[in-house]
Amino acid sequence: MLITRKAGFSASHCTARPDWSAERNAEVYGESANPHGHGHNYELEVTLSGEPDPVTGMVMDLKELKGILNEEVVHPFDHRHLNHEVPPFDRVVPTTENVAREIWRRLARRFQDGPPGVRLHNVRLWETADVYVDYGGEDER
Amino acid sequence: MLITRKAGFSASHCTARPDWSAERNAEVYGESANPHGHGHNYELEVTLSGEPDPVTGMVMDLKELKGILNEEVVHPFDHRHLNHEVPPFDRVVPTTENVAREIWRRLARRFQDGPPGVRLHNVRLWETADVYVDYGGEDER
Amino acid sequence: MLITRKAGFSASHCTARPDWSAERNAEVYGESANPHGHGHNYELEVTLSGEPDPVTGMVMDLKELKGILNEEVVHPFDHRHLNHEVPPFDRVVPTTENVAREIWRRLARRFQDGPPGVRLHNVRLWETADVYVDYGGEDER
Amino acid sequence: MLITRKAGFSASHCTARPDWSAERNAEVYGESANPHGHGHNYELEVTLSGEPDPVTGMVMDLKELKGILNEEVVHPFDHRHLNHEVPPFDRVVPTTENVAREIWRRLARRFQDGPPGVRLHNVRLWETADVYVDYGGEDER
Amino acid sequence: MLITRKAGFSASHCTARPDWSAERNAEVYGESANPHGHGHNYELEVTLSGEPDPVTGMVMDLKELKGILNEEVVHPFDHRHLNHEVPPFDRVVPTTENVAREIWRRLARRFQDGPPGVRLHNVRLWETADVYVDYGGEDER
Amino acid sequence: MLITRKAGFSASHCTARPDWSAERNAEVYGESANPHGHGHNYELEVTLSGEPDPVTGMVMDLKELKGILNEEVVHPFDHRHLNHEVPPFDRVVPTTENVAREIWRRLARRFQDGPPGVRLHNVRLWETADVYVDYGGEDER
Repeated sequence: MLITRKAGFSASHCTARPDWSAERNAEVYGESANPHGHGHNYELEVTLSGEPDPVTGMVMDLKELKGILNEEVVHPFDHRHLNHEVPPFDRVVPTTENVAREIWRRLARRFQDGPPGVRLHNVRLWETADVYVDYGGEDER
Repeated sequence: MLITRKAGFSASHCTARPDWSAERNAEVYGESANPHGHGHNYELEVTLSGEPDPVTGMVMDLKELKGILNEEVVHPFDHRHLNHEVPPFDRVVPTTENVAREIWRRLARRFQDGPPGVRLHNVRLWETADVYVDYGGEDER
Repeated sequence: MLITRKAGFSASHCTARPDWSAERNAEVYGESANPHGHGHNYELEVTLSGEPDPVTGMVMDLKELKGILNEEVVHPFDHRHLNHEVPPFDRVVPTTENVAREIWRRLARRFQDGPPGVRLHNVRLWETADVYVDYGGEDER
Repeated sequence: MLITRKAGFSASHCTARPDWSAERNAEVYGESANPHGHGHNYELEVTLSGEPDPVTGMVMDLKELKGILNEEVVHPFDHRHLNHEVPPFDRVVPTTENVAREIWRRLARRFQDGPPGVRLHNVRLWETADVYVDYGGEDER
Repeated sequence: MLITRKAGFSASHCTARPDWSAERNAEVYGESANPHGHGHNYELEVTLSGEPDPVTGMVMDLKELKGILNEEVVHPFDHRHLNHEVPPFDRVVPTTENVAREIWRRLARRFQDGPPGVRLHNVRLWETADVYVDYGGEDER
Repeated sequence: MLITRKAGFSASHCTARPDWSAERNAEVYGESANPHGHGHNYELEVTLSGEPDPVTGMVMDLKELKGILNEEVVHPFDHRHLNHEVPPFDRVVPTTENVAREIWRRLARRFQDGPPGVRLHNVRLWETADVYVDYGGEDER
């Protein structure tokens, strides 16, 4: 069984490599390379897999999950400029792909010793209402 | 190929075990243990798998599917207090996980002798705009 | 200028008059008269009118508004059965119309001595994704 | 990793087989067999699989993907009557299932020689807010 | 107090004047002049004004309102080609503006002798998720 | 009659007065005063009033309106940091209230000599899915 909880954060980013010229960044990333940055209301859907506890009927306490999402993602990312304030985005270009992967890494740590039988299954990150990324930790397996 | 149809119902529930004290229920389920109950506009997405019929181009007649959803879920659940009026929730705590599993069971019966090649694939149940559960009958297999 | 903030709460209600027979309630209110109650994810949109402060550029601090909505509506209504736990709905039938009016009354008190020039302008209450009520305090004027 | 982009088009269709009588079409397809046609604001979600390029952090340039969706789907389908103007729907009944399969075919061609490591993974087509189809090219494999 | 109910219908239309040449229609209406027609999932929001009945707490019985919307709009418009099957759109170009006005006229008839104190207040018609029209009967007053 | 068209842009901003200390800005604007900026997917709804032309049935050509919104708002605001790149937000704090007023000013210029009988009626600006502002040019009248 899968259970999914949403969370959101409003952040700025600039998709450009610091080791490239402005021209090359504009060529590859277009308007998103604007060094002043631009922003999004990111929407996150975090999916866990597990079996409902036969006594409580719950895969996991959703208030506890909300607390983890706030600690690992919402508080550090919300109202921030990702490139300047949220590592590793000082070094890693914060494309939606890379932001989703970083969120996976932060959350995966928390579920290693988490409730027995509960595993982080998928991170879906919406950058706008038209674009989203799904990441399930594939390249770590 | 997968085809999904949505349906909705407005119901009350109380997530608490009748064999536990009020204190223990509050500790485990928080505000949702309130014995007076509270409610949701549940949203259901039912997904079938199958191949489109080469003559009609349809996996299944969607009006027929709508009829099944109404008979098995919407009519018995809508405008009801799940714990008091919809078995087995007099005995089984109606967490989103357990409600999704019960919906799967009710629908799975209907697709056992259903259109050839069409199988119930997934039940997604949204409790609020921020939380949903996916169930595909895993523990029956 | 108008500024609107949303909030939500999940509650149960039963639309029936205690001084009527079950038959008459069913005749007038249909399935919503079910005495066990049913529930909704209510969505609220609260609109204030005012001029942006020339120094801060804000009609009102939105965090302060959020605090008022939580105190007056979300905390007392969320996870509650309106008829049994939220006065005056022990005496007043909690139709969407009456719930919207009660929310107006609770909020209007808070804006009487509120920030100068800021007035409560409208309360929009969605009971489902298909039905909403707008109330602007007309019958108090 | 999966990346999804949405696109939309407004089109007419009529689900009826030209080799059947009006009566038989009405029996099988109901109101949708109306020969004058009716229409939808179709919503499309196209999902690609691939690994983010280690240099750019992108699975694929989303502007390039938008261009492909416009060329293959939006421009030929938008503001059209599918049965009369968009082959093969002069011969193939444009059920949601068949439209999704046609969109897969048009897009799959474009990704055969596309960016290395990027594959078309899924086409989701919403006909209304309540019905959608997912197709992943199963019957071609 | 205002109360609003939503309804939807899927229809085709073609915005072109029959007394104009194809060229002139294309010049004025663009792609929407395509004589084969195209279609939309129209969304309708009908708003009534009135005071809640002091006994029932309702402006109007919403099931009765739903019945009126079905009779006057959904059944005659859904799964139809407006220009060919829904008068006056054989003579009147079915722009969103004109469709909203026709819906107002059909509904206004029903509320002339309707529940005392209840008036049709506004018709909002969404043609797509990006465009809507509001009409309140201004030019009849 | 009113006709509304939506548009969107993704931008960064920082709500802080340059003539105030960091402490005072944090006290008044909270996290939004973060000088690195944060961002939003702003959603804009622009409403015009007018009568449908008796010949074309349109208040205004919506493609022309889209062109105006792109020229005046989307192109200058999208993928920008409002404080650094979009005047007057180098001097005026870009609260939602002030951004809505600036959008009104830019659009109002365009409708002064616009199609006869068509007036800019309202600008609604959503900063997040929970907060929006409506501005109708009140303080210029």
